[in-house]
Amino acid sequence: MSFLTQDKLTIVGAAGMIGSNMAQTAAMMSLTPNICLYDPFPTGLEGVAEEIRHCGFEGLNLTFTSCIKEALTGAKYVVSSGGAPRKDGMTREDLLKGNAEIAAQLGKDIKTYCPDVRHVVIIFNPADITGLVTLIHSGLRPEQVTTLAALDSTRLQSELAKHFGVAQSEVVGARTYGGHGEAMAVFSSGATVAGQSLSSLIGTDKLPEATWAEIKERVTKGGANIIKLRGRSSFQSPAYVSIEMIRAAMGGAPFRWPAGCYVAIPGLDHVVMGMETVIDKDGVHYSHELKGSESEKAALKKSYEHLVKMRDEVIAMGVIPAVADWKSVNPNL
Amino acid sequence: MSFLTQDKLTIVGAAGMIGSNMAQTAAMMSLTPNICLYDPFPTGLEGVAEEIRHCGFEGLNLTFTSCIKEALTGAKYVVSSGGAPRKDGMTREDLLKGNAEIAAQLGKDIKTYCPDVRHVVIIFNPADITGLVTLIHSGLRPEQVTTLAALDSTRLQSELAKHFGVAQSEVVGARTYGGHGEAMAVFSSGATVAGQSLSSLIGTDKLPEATWAEIKERVTKGGANIIKLRGRSSFQSPAYVSIEMIRAAMGGAPFRWPAGCYVAIPGLDHVVMGMETVIDKDGVHYSHELKGSESEKAALKKSYEHLVKMRDEVIAMGVIPAVADWKSVNPNL
Repeated sequence: MSFLTQDKLTIVGAAGMIGSNMAQTAAMMSLTPNICLYDPFPTGLEGVAEEIRHCGFEGLNLTFTSCIKEALTGAKYVVSSGGAPRKDGMTREDLLKGNAEIAAQLGKDIKTYCPDVRHVVIIFNPADITGLVTLIHSGLRPEQVTTLAALDSTRLQSELAKHFGVAQSEVVGARTYGGHGEAMAVFSSGATVAGQSLSSLIGTDKLPEATWAEIKERVTKGGANIIKLRGRSSFQSPAYVSIEMIRAAMGGAPFRWPAGCYVAIPGLDHVVMGMETVIDKDGVHYSHELKGSESEKAALKKSYEHLVKMRDEVIAMGVIPAVADWKSVNPNL
Repeated sequence: MSFLTQDKLTIVGAAGMIGSNMAQTAAMMSLTPNICLYDPFPTGLEGVAEEIRHCGFEGLNLTFTSCIKEALTGAKYVVSSGGAPRKDGMTREDLLKGNAEIAAQLGKDIKTYCPDVRHVVIIFNPADITGLVTLIHSGLRPEQVTTLAALDSTRLQSELAKHFGVAQSEVVGARTYGGHGEAMAVFSSGATVAGQSLSSLIGTDKLPEATWAEIKERVTKGGANIIKLRGRSSFQSPAYVSIEMIRAAMGGAPFRWPAGCYVAIPGLDHVVMGMETVIDKDGVHYSHELKGSESEKAALKKSYEHLVKMRDEVIAMGVIPAVADWKSVNPNL
């Protein structure tokens, strides 16, 4: 069996639907023999470990633990889906606070137990915020932390393919940027459908403005639609795509979709958000040149402002310090 | 994107936990671009299809339908997890009857809509019986139908690895044969642990008889243990392993574990059960030479007799004809 690396990959939240799928996906991709599953819920975690063992993956050295110290010690790569889902009676703010606190603790644990980690992918929601909080508290460099943002772009690709009746792969360059939430910025420029520019199709009979607006609506509500159809949150696509991200960071196939990353451009800074990115062995790199129409740039700015508002709420909650003080916690920022 | 084949693969029961995992697994393995998902439950099915689309698999031509005719037409490979789970108040016989009837209909549908199918893998329980019923009604050759039996062997491998504290892949040749149920025959001969014969270890300090009995007990109760730990039936390992089986039938990597197949050996005949098998492009082949100790052979015989009893129940239910009349339904038997 040949693996991409021998380095330890730790999957945080492995007892959940996303985490358990990530474990199987990582094993199937032969990323590394050394996969460690972590979850605070030991019974479900053992069940997942048993399932993966019963797959009989050749050469896999699977471990699992409910001790975060053991899970992170020696980890070179970490993917975390380990947030809490929104429960009955919880407000959006309760969820934000709860998951931001989980992210803060994860960041601190990374700093304590695996300061030499190479890359961390954060996917629990709101991922832009939890990724930012993890980055701040971990002390890592901005290139080392990414968040799952790609599903909005894959959903755009899928919706366009359905609308035009073409194969999904014939839609190239479908992109959303900014926040991974309803305030995302859906771009048309840069995308092509069977070789034809998407922007040139919008407003024609082939894609009337109203239909384009509906497509954008379906993209921003893509996650809610899965809940409606399956009766449960999306878990296969976030698991698969986030493992594609960590594979790229391990030096494997380049990651083809936007990732959420720490952005420092004048006017767009001190947040984590979805950008045009490349993930490779050196981490994530993003394009500083903002392409797109004026209205697309305005939508991105609006999405950014929504993120700033959420970020400031988390500052007000005391989970992260004020922006001016980030350097004191993480000198890389 | 390079695929193993361009042939259509139909996944039956794709809205369920196993079926949806099979869809993702098959796409990840790049078996074929032409994957068709079938389920009688259209809403959940659409949700699964959306999830797979959101993974953004390059070149994948995913279709889904709740029309079995559309699903099977042109299919060259079929994997079915499409049985009903046992519900409250149902007896084991109710389950057997219900799933045998589903298998009979699947067999008839295969005969009607895709008589040129190359290979069919059946995994819904009791898989030995549902596989046999499908084979009889499909009119296919015995080589063309296999059932999932491997998880008992992978569980044995896993339990032995845990007991001896070795890597799972250091346990070679772990095997169970016969029925995929509690009456399975767990073999020790042929297995080695870190190069040492398992049979020679049994009864020594390293593996006292009582401990070996406990291990066998854990293997036969492996599925029940997953339910206890995860609160749901095993779904990742059956999905992954069954897609490994169909990959082998497509001409991909050889399948490394026992498969359930139609057996015709004097004294062991007219059943489908787990044997030492090879699955390749020409289908499944099994070893006619029964290795093992006398007590192992006796256990296999006992397991066979249990299957015969279940088979005869299904005959009594009228789902399949009497053994002597199988040829009138399927001349290949």
